[in-house]
Amino acid sequence: MTSTRCAACKHLRRRCPPDCIFSPYFPSDNPQRFAYVHRIYGASNIAKILQDLPVHIRGEAADSLYYEAHCRMKDPIHGCVGIITLLHQQIYNAQTQLSKIQAEIAVLSAKAQTESHYQHQVEHVPNVDENF
Amino acid sequence: MTSTRCAACKHLRRRCPPDCIFSPYFPSDNPQRFAYVHRIYGASNIAKILQDLPVHIRGEAADSLYYEAHCRMKDPIHGCVGIITLLHQQIYNAQTQLSKIQAEIAVLSAKAQTESHYQHQVEHVPNVDENF
Repeated sequence: MTSTRCAACKHLRRRCPPDCIFSPYFPSDNPQRFAYVHRIYGASNIAKILQDLPVHIRGEAADSLYYEAHCRMKDPIHGCVGIITLLHQQIYNAQTQLSKIQAEIAVLSAKAQTESHYQHQVEHVPNVDENF
Repeated sequence: MTSTRCAACKHLRRRCPPDCIFSPYFPSDNPQRFAYVHRIYGASNIAKILQDLPVHIRGEAADSLYYEAHCRMKDPIHGCVGIITLLHQQIYNAQTQLSKIQAEIAVLSAKAQTESHYQHQVEHVPNVDENF
């Protein structure tokens, strides 16, 4: 007999009711997804978070809870705050690079303008041949 | 009589033991810090995460748990994954801006080089006065 319980009810060793709060977001073919969030938040906290949300956005909430739980399993000290720190660093680096390149472009722009002005002057010098 | 219980033990209405796992990271003058992590993770899950870590990094872990709990309270659907998405978008925008500006600098560079070459040629044209 194939079990029709969701991953959460299987994990919690309980009957999966027809109105199971976990069932739509924790399918039986991905037991690790529930194992992770269960380990970090506990079943009652996940149920509470999901129940407090309208049905159509519970899937998105379950996804982000899984993502955060997964991060916390990989990095128990920083969780996904470690990723946020890393991304802030990347933004800082990109902004530094951008500032440098903007300064470089200002120098080149000024140089191009000066040379274009010089060229313009040269083009408008009276033709010496015409005077002889 | 002033209470010497930490914020966690006060919240949980229990005696604060001398070796309290929460006490160093959840001081009594910041009750909201524990209230947030308690609401999202539950006391036993926070205790478990802290206990599994060496003492010297538990403070950092408590900080990141508080940060994530705070994010989840503000945005129950995405938690701090919402911030990660936002930062990824910022990095994408910075990279796009960087690519555009790099293309612009390549054009200006080529222009500056061409004009410098032109100027060099003009400077080496024999002086017509010398021929007369």
